[in-house]
Formats: sequence, C-alpha cells, structure tokens
Amino acid sequence: MRVGFLGGTGIEGMGLALRFAAAGAKVILGSRSSERAARAALDYNGILGQPLIVGTTNKEMLSDSEVVFLTVPFDQAVIAVEACRSDFSSNTVLVDVTVPMRFKDGQLEYLEQEGRSNAERIADHLPGAVDLVAAFKTVPAHILAETRQQLECDVFVCGESPGAKERVIEAVSMIPSLRPLDAGPLRNARILERMTVLAAQLNRRYKSKGARYRIVGL
Amino acid sequence: MRVGFLGGTGIEGMGLALRFAAAGAKVILGSRSSERAARAALDYNGILGQPLIVGTTNKEMLSDSEVVFLTVPFDQAVIAVEACRSDFSSNTVLVDVTVPMRFKDGQLEYLEQEGRSNAERIADHLPGAVDLVAAFKTVPAHILAETRQQLECDVFVCGESPGAKERVIEAVSMIPSLRPLDAGPLRNARILERMTVLAAQLNRRYKSKGARYRIVGL
Repeated sequence: MRVGFLGGTGIEGMGLALRFAAAGAKVILGSRSSERAARAALDYNGILGQPLIVGTTNKEMLSDSEVVFLTVPFDQAVIAVEACRSDFSSNTVLVDVTVPMRFKDGQLEYLEQEGRSNAERIADHLPGAVDLVAAFKTVPAHILAETRQQLECDVFVCGESPGAKERVIEAVSMIPSLRPLDAGPLRNARILERMTVLAAQLNRRYKSKGARYRIVGL
Repeated sequence: MRVGFLGGTGIEGMGLALRFAAAGAKVILGSRSSERAARAALDYNGILGQPLIVGTTNKEMLSDSEVVFLTVPFDQAVIAVEACRSDFSSNTVLVDVTVPMRFKDGQLEYLEQEGRSNAERIADHLPGAVDLVAAFKTVPAHILAETRQQLECDVFVCGESPGAKERVIEAVSMIPSLRPLDAGPLRNARILERMTVLAAQLNRRYKSKGARYRIVGL
C-alpha cells in the first residue's frame, strides 16, 4: 500500500510514517518544500536503518498515494487542504487524525467547533471526489513515535464512504497490535475527538503519557 | 459500605446490586412501593443464594445509604430525583449511570441535551447538599447483570466534589476486575454518555453485546 503524509514532519506524521514503513507500506512524505520532505525522510530512514521512506512535494505525494494522512496541527488542517485542493487525485482517501484542544485555566479542554467535529469541518473543504476518513484520533502521537512500544489499542475509523473506510481499515491492519474498528459515520468524530481530550486529562491526572482506548467484549 | 438503589428493579440496578452484594456491601433497594422493592430483593437474593439484599421505600433507603445509585431510565431520572427531594440526607452521594440515547432511522444516536449531559441536568434538580457523581455510564447493564462474567474494564467517575468522587471510587474498587478512574469534572459526562452510544453502535455492527472501555497505558 502507498501511504502519503500531508505535513509529515511533525511527531504524529513521524510516528505513523515509521510504523507504516516498518510494516511494509511504501511511505511518501509530502511538504510544501521537497527539500524539507527529503530531509525528514532521511531522518526517518536513519531511525529505521533502511531507506524505506521518500520525501517529495505535496503535489507528487498526492498523485502517488492511495491513502493520505493529514498530519498537521488541528488549526492548520483546513488551510493545508485548501492549499492542495487542485492536487488531490479523484480516488484519494484522506485521513484526518487531528483533535482540537487547548489549555484553559490550567485544564485541557475540547475546543468546541460549533457542535461539529474538526473532521467534519475539514470534509467541507475537500473536492467532492475525495473521501475523508477520521482515524487514529485517540492514539497518542508520541506513543506511535516510540516504535518499540507495543500499541495494543483500538483505532476507531469513521467516515461516510464504506469503501474509503475499508481502505483505511486495511492500512491500520498492517500495523501490529492495532485493531481497526469501524466506528460509523463521520459525525462520530465528535465522540472520538472528545475521547482524546479525556485520555489527555487522564494522562495528566495519573502522570502517564500513553493513555489510549481498547474496547473489551468485541 | 451501604449502597442504595433509587429505582433498583431494572436491569442496571439489578446488575449493580448483585455485584455490590457479592462484594460484601450492604445493599438496599428503594422503590416507591416497599412491596415491590422487597419482591426484587427476594429475587436477587435467590440469584445470590444468600439473603444479602433488602428492599424498602425510597425514603428509608435514602436515609440508610452512603452511596445511592440512580438506576432509572434516563428520561425518568429528573422526575425520580424531584419526587425524593426532601428525603435526601445531607451527605448522600448520588450516582448517575444514565445515558440518553434513541433509535432514529434505524440508527442508535445520542439524544442531545442542549449541549449538556444528562448528569448535569440531573444535578440541577438536587438539593444543594447532595453531591452528584457520574459513573458506570460506559459499562453495559446486562454485562453487569451476568455476574459470572468478568468485567475487565474501566469505570470512569466524574463529578464536582472530590470527596464524593473518592467515595464512589472506593465503592467501585470493591467489585473485582473493575478499575475506577477519576475522569474529571461533571461536564465530562458529556464525553462518557457519547462514548456509551459509540459502544452500543459497535455492538450492533460487530454483533456483540458487551462492548466496554479499557484504557491502555495508565
């Protein structure tokens, strides 16, 4: 599978890129600057010990990838998507992993999006032929990046297109110790994004860093 | 610990009452009719094989219990609380386990409470001296009632009063294979109630009945 990253130079993109490359996917990092993407690819390949990841422009990455992860900060997601609007292939599946949260009065809280999810907001800005799927929202970025750490959690996958969800579920299945779950329509990202805030609060309360979800009884 | 049930004759009340009685708590079922409560207690004691549970009026139950579970259907919670308003002891901790959901167009969905949670709605109707804590919202009622089933999941406990939460956490700790987690302020019930809807949807999709949450990495 060819897995691309739109904004793959942050910690979330790094973790996913390393995990997918180690699992045998062809990983393509995209950036506005191909030099920056190439440099990140070099760094990641150093960690992997093998030249498995390539870096290029967002435009090339989008034309080459079957699944593209949107791994930018939550408040840059719409801008990033708008900037590439004309470069999406018609059968691209875009995966949103973002969670809008902030500190307020010393507490982490969900940043309300007028009752909707960040995923739904992003979907509004995509060309009609591009399917958006939300996934990995509840999996902590830095746990993904600690590649020797077993994940042992579930990945909730939600979206409107069954085919697009299926492709993302297939991608998730490549990574050991992750279980993809079909979590219904895209509006369920409203639940998933809030779950991430709860997990982040639990991390602070229990002095942990890796709180993540597993469903028992399925 | 003395654990009471306001509306303990449904499946959620039954499961919790059986679990608490088996764990050594003194369990008191309350009902508007003491006969009905006594009959339920007799039934539950039959399941337990020992006379561990008593049934009485809500008024008596409220004066005898340290922790009271509000185990009525979600849309009867406010009515039930209003009916007992003058019977609460000043240091009662009331535990809300309800989740507002409905079927719409063949799909389970969260029944929005004007952006708030059912727990917060209920709290508005309590006397000032009574603390409300939300817990067990994400634990399926019928799994609680299958007493030979290991639960092996987390119980998210949220509320405004640290002391009240502590008492509920202590109660949860009595039941084997449940881990209580302090899930923050009462407003986090907004997250927990929605998580329950997600779990119920997963049950339908994956033809299961017992989907429940466990946090990995804490």
